[in-house]
Amino acid sequence: MTSAYDDLMSFERETGALAQVAGRLGWDQETMMPRGAGDQRSEEMAAMESVLHARRTDPRIGEWLAAIDPQTLDAEGQAQVRHIARSFRRANKVPAKLAADLARLTSRSHRTWAEARADDDFQAFAPVLAEVVALKREEGAALAAGGDVYDALLDDFEPGATAAELKAMFGALRPRLVALRQAILERPEPPALHGTFDETAQMALTRKVAQCFGYDMSRGRIDKAVHPFSSGSGDDVRITTRTNALDPFNCLYSTIHETGHATYEQAIRGNYRFTPLGQGVSMGVHESQSRIYENQLGRSRAFTGWLYGQFGETFGELGLDGPEAFYAAVNRVRNGYIRTEADEVQYNLHVLLRFDLEQALISGDLQVADLETAWNDRFHADFGFAVDKPSDGVLQDVHWSAGLFGYFPTYSLGNVYAGCLLKALQEAVPDLETQLAAGDPSGATAWLRENVQQHGGLYEPREVIERACGFAPSEAPLLDYLEAKFGALYGL
Amino acid sequence: MTSAYDDLMSFERETGALAQVAGRLGWDQETMMPRGAGDQRSEEMAAMESVLHARRTDPRIGEWLAAIDPQTLDAEGQAQVRHIARSFRRANKVPAKLAADLARLTSRSHRTWAEARADDDFQAFAPVLAEVVALKREEGAALAAGGDVYDALLDDFEPGATAAELKAMFGALRPRLVALRQAILERPEPPALHGTFDETAQMALTRKVAQCFGYDMSRGRIDKAVHPFSSGSGDDVRITTRTNALDPFNCLYSTIHETGHATYEQAIRGNYRFTPLGQGVSMGVHESQSRIYENQLGRSRAFTGWLYGQFGETFGELGLDGPEAFYAAVNRVRNGYIRTEADEVQYNLHVLLRFDLEQALISGDLQVADLETAWNDRFHADFGFAVDKPSDGVLQDVHWSAGLFGYFPTYSLGNVYAGCLLKALQEAVPDLETQLAAGDPSGATAWLRENVQQHGGLYEPREVIERACGFAPSEAPLLDYLEAKFGALYGL
Repeated sequence: MTSAYDDLMSFERETGALAQVAGRLGWDQETMMPRGAGDQRSEEMAAMESVLHARRTDPRIGEWLAAIDPQTLDAEGQAQVRHIARSFRRANKVPAKLAADLARLTSRSHRTWAEARADDDFQAFAPVLAEVVALKREEGAALAAGGDVYDALLDDFEPGATAAELKAMFGALRPRLVALRQAILERPEPPALHGTFDETAQMALTRKVAQCFGYDMSRGRIDKAVHPFSSGSGDDVRITTRTNALDPFNCLYSTIHETGHATYEQAIRGNYRFTPLGQGVSMGVHESQSRIYENQLGRSRAFTGWLYGQFGETFGELGLDGPEAFYAAVNRVRNGYIRTEADEVQYNLHVLLRFDLEQALISGDLQVADLETAWNDRFHADFGFAVDKPSDGVLQDVHWSAGLFGYFPTYSLGNVYAGCLLKALQEAVPDLETQLAAGDPSGATAWLRENVQQHGGLYEPREVIERACGFAPSEAPLLDYLEAKFGALYGL
Repeated sequence: MTSAYDDLMSFERETGALAQVAGRLGWDQETMMPRGAGDQRSEEMAAMESVLHARRTDPRIGEWLAAIDPQTLDAEGQAQVRHIARSFRRANKVPAKLAADLARLTSRSHRTWAEARADDDFQAFAPVLAEVVALKREEGAALAAGGDVYDALLDDFEPGATAAELKAMFGALRPRLVALRQAILERPEPPALHGTFDETAQMALTRKVAQCFGYDMSRGRIDKAVHPFSSGSGDDVRITTRTNALDPFNCLYSTIHETGHATYEQAIRGNYRFTPLGQGVSMGVHESQSRIYENQLGRSRAFTGWLYGQFGETFGELGLDGPEAFYAAVNRVRNGYIRTEADEVQYNLHVLLRFDLEQALISGDLQVADLETAWNDRFHADFGFAVDKPSDGVLQDVHWSAGLFGYFPTYSLGNVYAGCLLKALQEAVPDLETQLAAGDPSGATAWLRENVQQHGGLYEPREVIERACGFAPSEAPLLDYLEAKFGALYGL
């Protein structure tokens, strides 16, 4: 006779395997799918979603949970039950009609957004966005059950985090980042990389660098797609990247970023496969891995010194005066409108703007009709110049059109966590710089694998960072790191 | 209020969409999957199979079927209900334990077969094959419910066909094929293609030829894999092929063969998507399309005349004295052990051998212990020389190890149907040869699309061929075609 726990886990593993299949279908859609297969694919995805939704709300989960005494389980079993119970409660709190309405609406609003962005016309998007906000408030209220509505939405992406805690953290970040940005932009602009860079050679170099950051190509693959992303868990974790003949940094740093996500999923203990513990624990912790790979390691003086040699070997003459100029080019800070193209200093200012505005939308303090003005005012306040058009402003990101409220702050939380992890890593691996200067991040990635990645969902998000660091996470290490790095680079 | 028929079809469409997803996973496994993902993939496939099996045996199907009066449906609705009722009856006749035992056993026997073939050791495979035969007899008896056990297994691949009918057909084929083969092999061997042929250029040519046979690349793609196959229905039908630098015919004719399968699936009426009518109606009819594309059209004197020019443009000097020599090289008949490498004349002799042996295994007239001897005796009788080793004989094909009894005869049935279709096609398209000589099979493929392919599962297998041809299918047209073609080629 099997126990309720065994039955529950066997059901969850099968659901987890189906979720991997659905994820692989998403990868296929962006990389391999014939262009004429879009409508058919939508129906295939909907069929998979329907199966997954039925399983996630299956009443047997409630019966199994009720029959389990967590005291009889070890720490892993207790963590599994905690995840499963949380998901089950959430899935059952949202009425089926609301979930279906949201799915239909966000499918429509996503298309409307894409057209409005192409036409640079926020008014074309505003009515459907207002509908999305209304339904998300309804969903949040159902989930919050009397608690904070925004926190309830945030919980989907960062379990346990609260807007109040993030507000405090981001409130400390914002003024010092604004000041750092202003000081940098008053200094002379460093030289940039010029020329054209063979795209096949870019892909070869990007594969080499991904593997040097620990990506296991026998359990993954790298393809080109319009948007870089990482997909899958365990033994089949795939990366996409893109190439631009004029900007080899785009391909390379997109790949290093996705390698952080991908190695996290590859490193999780094998016996967690297909279970709730068998994936990255939150968006914020995921982003801490992608960001520390990309920035604190990949854009460090030490590593770019090695990379300078690789670039020379791969592409020939770069027109830059040595590794210091290359380091400065990699870390150039310039005015820009677009979050995804922003440097380390300005990136979080883009995120904080979105976090404050989406909170106000969900609380009802801000109406969609006033959103464009609010965006433009805030942008001018933090960046010192005006948004030129909606596609460079309020229409630039896909998230809100897809109903993803509560997602944006996890980007900056990931940066904050990356700052904390770097501080702990530097103590744990005293010769980190020497290793990176030799093109070897394996000391760093082994430490991250051991202290963060292998645990998957075993600990709560904030807990896994605190256990790894040995101190309570805060924004201070990130700020110290940014001020020191860019202060030195720009002679502040 | 929806009707029972609407509810049933909506359920079936979702099942059909999930089956497409499972099929795409199979494609991914052979083309894209990282090599270390095999174990994880097995679990993902098993999870999909478990979902599909539960849906195929869902008791609601029985309730919906009972509530439907077929007289109220049009011809398409009646055909849908006929297919669904047949599948549901079959799925419920096999006890769940037997189905699970068979799945486990064939997974093991497939591995054992692969090792035994590599070691050329039939005795290593015989015990597990005996277990497979025993379980297949049990499954066949459950399905036959008092009727013929082999017919019940055959029905999985060729609904409505019987061993008695095939026996009569194949009995007429065998002596004339043996005689034709002997006469040909007494004649001087025609010259062969020599040299090495750039594999990238082979792939470019194969894509061009697939499209010239009507393959819609906007709803498909061609990749390399170990085994050529076609996968998917509707707007996402993918082909794989392979290249061999010494033998460009391998790549090209594998692709034309798979193009026959793939265009069939692409041509089915769009409103049949995901339903039982939305796929090729049987293995035999499927094979009739792949074979007529590959052989009657692709290996014709007229088409090879055009192809000769393409080969010259693609690969330069071929070392063959003009298009007639090229035609002879494409159609060379030589002694060989292997079914999948056989020419048009000998191919069916390989199949007939397997058909007779597998019938005897299922009836109990032949024991697995005697199978190798029986194979070798029959091979010597039909081919006039001895099998040299098991991997060239009884161990060469995967089918029996996978429990696929009743599959082999559909290959020859497909050839027989292709012979019938060619006869009808020649009357319907009087200038067929002129078109083919210009490298344009579109008159032929349009006729096949109109008369066979678009119907999907609307008519029963034999019925769709008879409707297209206007006469009852028999082996005579194929025999006449082969004797005429090879008689002329070899001066008989």
